[in-house]
Amino acid sequence: MRNLSISTPLPLKKVTIQDDFWSPYISLIRDVVVPYQWDALNDRVEESEPSHAIQNFKIAAGLETGEFHGMVFQDSDVAKWLEAVGYLLTLSPDSELEKIADEVIDIIAKAQHTDGYLNTYFTLKEPTGRWTNLAECHELYCSGHLIEAAVAYYNATGKGKILDVACRLADCIDEAFGAEAGKIKGYDGHQEIELALIKLYQITDNDRYLRLAKFFLDERGQRPHFYDLEYAKRNGKTHFPSLSMAKDKSYSQSHLPIRMQKTAEGHAVRVVYMCAGMADVAAETNDEQLLAACLSLWRNIVSKRMYITGAIGSMAYGEAFSLDYDLPSDTAYAETCASIGLIFFARRMLQIAAKSEYADVLERALYNTVIAGMSQDGKHFFYVNPLEVWPDASGKNRNFDHVKHQRQRWFGCACCPPNISRLLASLGSYIYSVKEETLYTHLYIGSQIELELNDQKVQVIQHSELPWEGNVRFQFNMEQSLRFTFALRLPSWCDTPEIHINDTSYSIHEASLIDGYIYIDRRWNPKDLVHLVLPMQINHMKGNPLIRETAGKVALQRGPLVYCLEEVDNGNHLHQLMISPNETGHSLFHPELLGGMQMIEMPAFRMRGDYWGDQLYQADVQDQLEQTTAHFIPYFAWANRSVGEMQVWIREQKFQPEEVQV
Amino acid sequence: MRNLSISTPLPLKKVTIQDDFWSPYISLIRDVVVPYQWDALNDRVEESEPSHAIQNFKIAAGLETGEFHGMVFQDSDVAKWLEAVGYLLTLSPDSELEKIADEVIDIIAKAQHTDGYLNTYFTLKEPTGRWTNLAECHELYCSGHLIEAAVAYYNATGKGKILDVACRLADCIDEAFGAEAGKIKGYDGHQEIELALIKLYQITDNDRYLRLAKFFLDERGQRPHFYDLEYAKRNGKTHFPSLSMAKDKSYSQSHLPIRMQKTAEGHAVRVVYMCAGMADVAAETNDEQLLAACLSLWRNIVSKRMYITGAIGSMAYGEAFSLDYDLPSDTAYAETCASIGLIFFARRMLQIAAKSEYADVLERALYNTVIAGMSQDGKHFFYVNPLEVWPDASGKNRNFDHVKHQRQRWFGCACCPPNISRLLASLGSYIYSVKEETLYTHLYIGSQIELELNDQKVQVIQHSELPWEGNVRFQFNMEQSLRFTFALRLPSWCDTPEIHINDTSYSIHEASLIDGYIYIDRRWNPKDLVHLVLPMQINHMKGNPLIRETAGKVALQRGPLVYCLEEVDNGNHLHQLMISPNETGHSLFHPELLGGMQMIEMPAFRMRGDYWGDQLYQADVQDQLEQTTAHFIPYFAWANRSVGEMQVWIREQKFQPEEVQV
Repeated sequence: MRNLSISTPLPLKKVTIQDDFWSPYISLIRDVVVPYQWDALNDRVEESEPSHAIQNFKIAAGLETGEFHGMVFQDSDVAKWLEAVGYLLTLSPDSELEKIADEVIDIIAKAQHTDGYLNTYFTLKEPTGRWTNLAECHELYCSGHLIEAAVAYYNATGKGKILDVACRLADCIDEAFGAEAGKIKGYDGHQEIELALIKLYQITDNDRYLRLAKFFLDERGQRPHFYDLEYAKRNGKTHFPSLSMAKDKSYSQSHLPIRMQKTAEGHAVRVVYMCAGMADVAAETNDEQLLAACLSLWRNIVSKRMYITGAIGSMAYGEAFSLDYDLPSDTAYAETCASIGLIFFARRMLQIAAKSEYADVLERALYNTVIAGMSQDGKHFFYVNPLEVWPDASGKNRNFDHVKHQRQRWFGCACCPPNISRLLASLGSYIYSVKEETLYTHLYIGSQIELELNDQKVQVIQHSELPWEGNVRFQFNMEQSLRFTFALRLPSWCDTPEIHINDTSYSIHEASLIDGYIYIDRRWNPKDLVHLVLPMQINHMKGNPLIRETAGKVALQRGPLVYCLEEVDNGNHLHQLMISPNETGHSLFHPELLGGMQMIEMPAFRMRGDYWGDQLYQADVQDQLEQTTAHFIPYFAWANRSVGEMQVWIREQKFQPEEVQV
Repeated sequence: MRNLSISTPLPLKKVTIQDDFWSPYISLIRDVVVPYQWDALNDRVEESEPSHAIQNFKIAAGLETGEFHGMVFQDSDVAKWLEAVGYLLTLSPDSELEKIADEVIDIIAKAQHTDGYLNTYFTLKEPTGRWTNLAECHELYCSGHLIEAAVAYYNATGKGKILDVACRLADCIDEAFGAEAGKIKGYDGHQEIELALIKLYQITDNDRYLRLAKFFLDERGQRPHFYDLEYAKRNGKTHFPSLSMAKDKSYSQSHLPIRMQKTAEGHAVRVVYMCAGMADVAAETNDEQLLAACLSLWRNIVSKRMYITGAIGSMAYGEAFSLDYDLPSDTAYAETCASIGLIFFARRMLQIAAKSEYADVLERALYNTVIAGMSQDGKHFFYVNPLEVWPDASGKNRNFDHVKHQRQRWFGCACCPPNISRLLASLGSYIYSVKEETLYTHLYIGSQIELELNDQKVQVIQHSELPWEGNVRFQFNMEQSLRFTFALRLPSWCDTPEIHINDTSYSIHEASLIDGYIYIDRRWNPKDLVHLVLPMQINHMKGNPLIRETAGKVALQRGPLVYCLEEVDNGNHLHQLMISPNETGHSLFHPELLGGMQMIEMPAFRMRGDYWGDQLYQADVQDQLEQTTAHFIPYFAWANRSVGEMQVWIREQKFQPEEVQV
């Protein structure tokens, strides 16, 4: 049944990241974030409200007494932590970490009911409420994360215990849900189970899980509406009264059957998790219609509803999409998890069709919003990633209540931090994929891989200077020469890529350039070198003229990185700064800046305000400008020094020399 | 005790408005709005939810049976209607309207308790709750409106019944509140009683009411905090749980004693009603310190927290001020009532000191926000007056939930419509004031007045072409020549005023120009003519460089009117329009447009978007511009033709000829 035409990611265990930019992140996940999250899950982080997540499992397992505490989806925090641990153990053994994980798995297994059901909230708090409030209560969402964790941990260790828990849980779900008489024709309010079941199917080859994933997707949004039926059945009992999850169908993308959805509506994380599951099922079942639905939603998101940082979700209300071209910088929601979900979706689309546009979006979200979500110490996180902040307005203009100017230690709803962990710990599996005799390179991240092509072992060593410089070198190590196709992605941010093979320039023929990938089909010899040069100019990015927020403004991008202004480098009142369209500026590496990064300096103008005094409005007054230099740092690095204003989009204005006071 | 140095408004009964612009408004109030509101108060407007306001009084009076319905401050709608009726009857007799009003007064009088207490909510719904929740329940607010109505009706008719009700109510309040032992040391959550008591004091000369007004003001914000004390006393019972009125002290301007408040915080209407009362008490008691507090708040509002339309209140949350220079156009709250309250405050400051800046703000709020609050048919109203609307975002970006694109029939909280009625019905009293032998003209509104100056009767006939042209002519009619000072306000929007007396040019000496008023002190002869010429150019207004919203933009103003773009005249995507700083544009009267108004045409440029296709962001793309003409109409007239985009601030950009495609 599986569609063999997709390209398959190289498994994480075949990839070792060795990269000046990314290796420190992965070390940070291993050495700081995952241990810190373990402390958080065990209520040992003093500055934060206790998570209770491990405690809940222990109580459900009968190992301790007490009550459930936390959000209805608290279990998922443990699962996401365990999934990250699985990836870390795949990267390198760690007997101490594995021991902790095994102990957690023992507790989880004990908390599982004999029929396979597993959810500490319902076990402890609503034992008779199982499957009665799918719209709000995240049972299948939590199950999905448990399954993802199980697959990751099994892949890492080969230990079957947690995979067995996951299969029994999935079987229990399959007994309860389905089109057959007596089963519930429902689906979870928060999509996640769908993509998890595909992972379980892929590792077990059990068709049942694939069918169940497809059932959940296709049942979504059908009439009569399941959420209305279950709402009536439970007499209108509501878990989150403030959110109207059961009533507002678009919040959970159940306003229409998924194949009829053309625009991304509602809670942004749910949309992209759903799309990832749709793409999986489309690929696994050769479902062209479902793939077309994925393409519609993809097109809507990336061409009308995505921030330049790869963030999605334009408003705090419902953590949701709003409407086409509505991309306010300062009230953005732009949740870290939503960009992570967009990466999941992009990766699956990229497997189905190797088009650089998918990798461009994946890269945009990864290098900008995702890593902005975490501080450089690995202990502070952004849930919301605005493109402009004005700290003075905090607590005063309540439209910004959701916006923080500093990363927070942990959250009551702690979805984002463990999501960053599991993504970065598994980053190796995003770099390459293989389809028949073609090796695709999607991301330029220094790494070493081992794979078999045409039954011969090949090692590829990648050296990358990204994101600071566009030099990437590949070396092939193998026993003897071998013919295969090496497909290299040409990122959209570079207009003038060059390729050299063994120091000989390789002409980028149109014929070998398909959808943004160069296909180099030749017989490769041991020690062959490929040098990809991606010159990085400073790009003045503009927004589509239908975006109200970006009219008359530009954002600077260099390579994959979007840049921003910070108050610490530029003084306050950042909105008074303007740059001229003709300025190229220059970029310089500052080794002392936040561990070393390229800063952009750009001649700029500042509106003077001192001559205005008490006037609020004046007629026919000439702006007074002074010349200055604007300093930009990569967006992902903002808010690592001090609290202050930040701004991605800057006004672009032409000036006559006589206007400017030097 | 009264401070005689203030100027006194000419009483309404001495002023007859005869003005092409304003007379139709006053007719509309008389012929449509007040009768329509009477129907609304009696639950006879089919499209709207019933008001129950008259019904509540009838039940409280024992004339009908039933329950209280509506907001806790529902009584005030009846009072504001009655106040407007008082002004209308002052302007001209109307025996039918007076009969209706007398019947209402009879009902109100019957609803009054024997001890003078009067409030239908507490009478019917919480008979034992009197004075237990000042923070939230508007008892004194409703009392204040009743008192204002009584004064207006007594002035109009000389009938004492409602004034007697008002005095008994005020006496009842004075028995209950005060510094003396056994009295409540409290004050209302919504200021209004203060300025009402001053009106009652001025008409009765009873010092008790002045002292009580001063008590309420000075008690506000003292510690221990009255709202905490009463909250504890009623065991935390809360009337509006969603608003935290009792806890959030700045919401009700009780975060500090009023003399220590330097910035306008919290609910905007409350701030300006309070300020009006403060100015009254300062003037009546020669309280320089209190006047200084008024000046601080005035300065903060008009130089940091006011929209160019004279609107105030930057956010929906709490209908409140936010912070200095935070003046977003699209999420503005900008409540009609708040601008009316700002007019009350400005008028009182103007009486204390004849400075054109007070009248400028008064005029700005009146000609822009206040009359924007009502449709041309007098039956539809705006509560919120944004400076930019994007109807497509309605219901999709929930940050705009408070913004309507069409005026509404009536509101559950119907404060704004009757506030417009009472202001416009009493507009005559805003035009002139007198101080000793000086007659001040504050507003240029065609009118006829009678007054005594130096014991001699003088009639002044004003002909005004405002707001469309700056021609104003005055004629003095009296028995014999008479020396007095005629003080004319020179509005800030005119740089080149001219004065002609009997066709002779009058030189505007600096000596006679004080704070924006020209003082013409001479012996006037019968039939003398003064011709004031206020040339109206199209002013390109800019915002203070500290305002983020207006950076790089201009708003057009001509005379007192702020202009806006509407979709019906300019197509959609108004944000794509730009004007050049050097364009003067031209203004033309369109007799067919909404009853006749000046429209501004301005050469403009439009960003083209059609060549962008599916791209959301692009590098180094040149804007493509096309030349067009932007059409502006007065802001107050927006949304009278069809639903569409509207925008006050437009981008200003310089262009090189080669950029533009003709």
